[in-house]
Amino acid sequence: MAADALNIKALVFDVFGTVVDWHTSVTRHAENFGKANGITADWVDFAESWRAKYRPFMDKVRTGELPWTELDSLHRMGLDELLNDFGITGVSEEAKADLNLAWHRLDPWPDSPPGLTRLKAKFILATMSNGNIALMVDMAKYANLPWDTILGAELAHAYKPDAKTYLTGVELLHLKPEQVMMCAAHQGDLLAAAKQGLRTAFVKRPMERGINGKVDTTPDPSFDFVCNDFRDLATQLGV
Amino acid sequence: MAADALNIKALVFDVFGTVVDWHTSVTRHAENFGKANGITADWVDFAESWRAKYRPFMDKVRTGELPWTELDSLHRMGLDELLNDFGITGVSEEAKADLNLAWHRLDPWPDSPPGLTRLKAKFILATMSNGNIALMVDMAKYANLPWDTILGAELAHAYKPDAKTYLTGVELLHLKPEQVMMCAAHQGDLLAAAKQGLRTAFVKRPMERGINGKVDTTPDPSFDFVCNDFRDLATQLGV
Repeated sequence: MAADALNIKALVFDVFGTVVDWHTSVTRHAENFGKANGITADWVDFAESWRAKYRPFMDKVRTGELPWTELDSLHRMGLDELLNDFGITGVSEEAKADLNLAWHRLDPWPDSPPGLTRLKAKFILATMSNGNIALMVDMAKYANLPWDTILGAELAHAYKPDAKTYLTGVELLHLKPEQVMMCAAHQGDLLAAAKQGLRTAFVKRPMERGINGKVDTTPDPSFDFVCNDFRDLATQLGV
Repeated sequence: MAADALNIKALVFDVFGTVVDWHTSVTRHAENFGKANGITADWVDFAESWRAKYRPFMDKVRTGELPWTELDSLHRMGLDELLNDFGITGVSEEAKADLNLAWHRLDPWPDSPPGLTRLKAKFILATMSNGNIALMVDMAKYANLPWDTILGAELAHAYKPDAKTYLTGVELLHLKPEQVMMCAAHQGDLLAAAKQGLRTAFVKRPMERGINGKVDTTPDPSFDFVCNDFRDLATQLGV
């Protein structure tokens, strides 16, 4: 399908896993936390376990058990549980607060800065992440991500895959859903966006969970574009 | 005062007049509108008169006469009045809608793209404008403005100089007011920001109202920085 025919004006992006490599980065930050505090643990398991708390904590917001709470705070609640799960005690508040900022300091996949920079020449680029604005802005500075603006959960006070997250972003750009393409490595995210009329680009990230992790990279046949990385997407979109 | 001593993390910007030259740009777009529709008028006066409607329409939102209304819509209400004031009739809805987008297509002052690009290497850069997100994003693409994100009135549902506009932006960045510097060509904007604890940089824009317009470029002695343009500000901030 030709990009021009689709009349796409803006590309919006899932970030964790799609644009940045949270698995490797959080593992490294956790290792550094361990060294600095004299703690040994399986830090790959620690990173994976932290990420595994992401959805249940968001669900507490979705179900109303928690009022609107930004992702930094959910990460911190998850971290406090996780330290307990791992039997890690006696860590200073300062060290915990700093470790929580690991999610602000995630390395980009190598193709993300150059691929996104190419895409930016033709399209509006915005995040459509569950990460809050401060997190996204810090990460953009750290990882050199050329967003035009930050959209996503915090502006909608709703977490993906809630329709409101996608539609709030579309409305803030004064665009129609079909003029906006959701780019993500996660099928559920894309299917939820498509349900609201957005276009979809599936980005294969087979290494999202490290060399031993299992990731499904078989695209749903409904996706408008399927790409190996952002350089590939730029080429497919003619930029 | 040394920039490091101030511990500034983010620079937030007034946009109309400070970053872009609305006077020349809106005059040109209005002239083109006149040519396309066979209308003659004093287009400099037209541009100035349109801008003059900005404050009274925002005041309607501030006083509650209007519910929250984004700037694009206020510009359009002003335009409809203005066409009437100028005795211009019989213009198509399409032509009026297009003319209203003049505010999305404002030329940057020549120093803005290179100066802001230098500043972006060290600081978070965000808009702190009364313009809505779609307007600011379109303008950034048109004028090559390297914002990290769009903040300002629409996110606060409050127009500057309301304290809420500045403080909502500061909170969304997870910063303290003294870590954020408001950059503007308008003294009232800076004084309102300073009242909330933000740092201030006064940017002299003597040509904001064209060669015959009167602009006060005498800075209030309380401002932290006074600069001739954004290259100068970058130099003063050591980048």
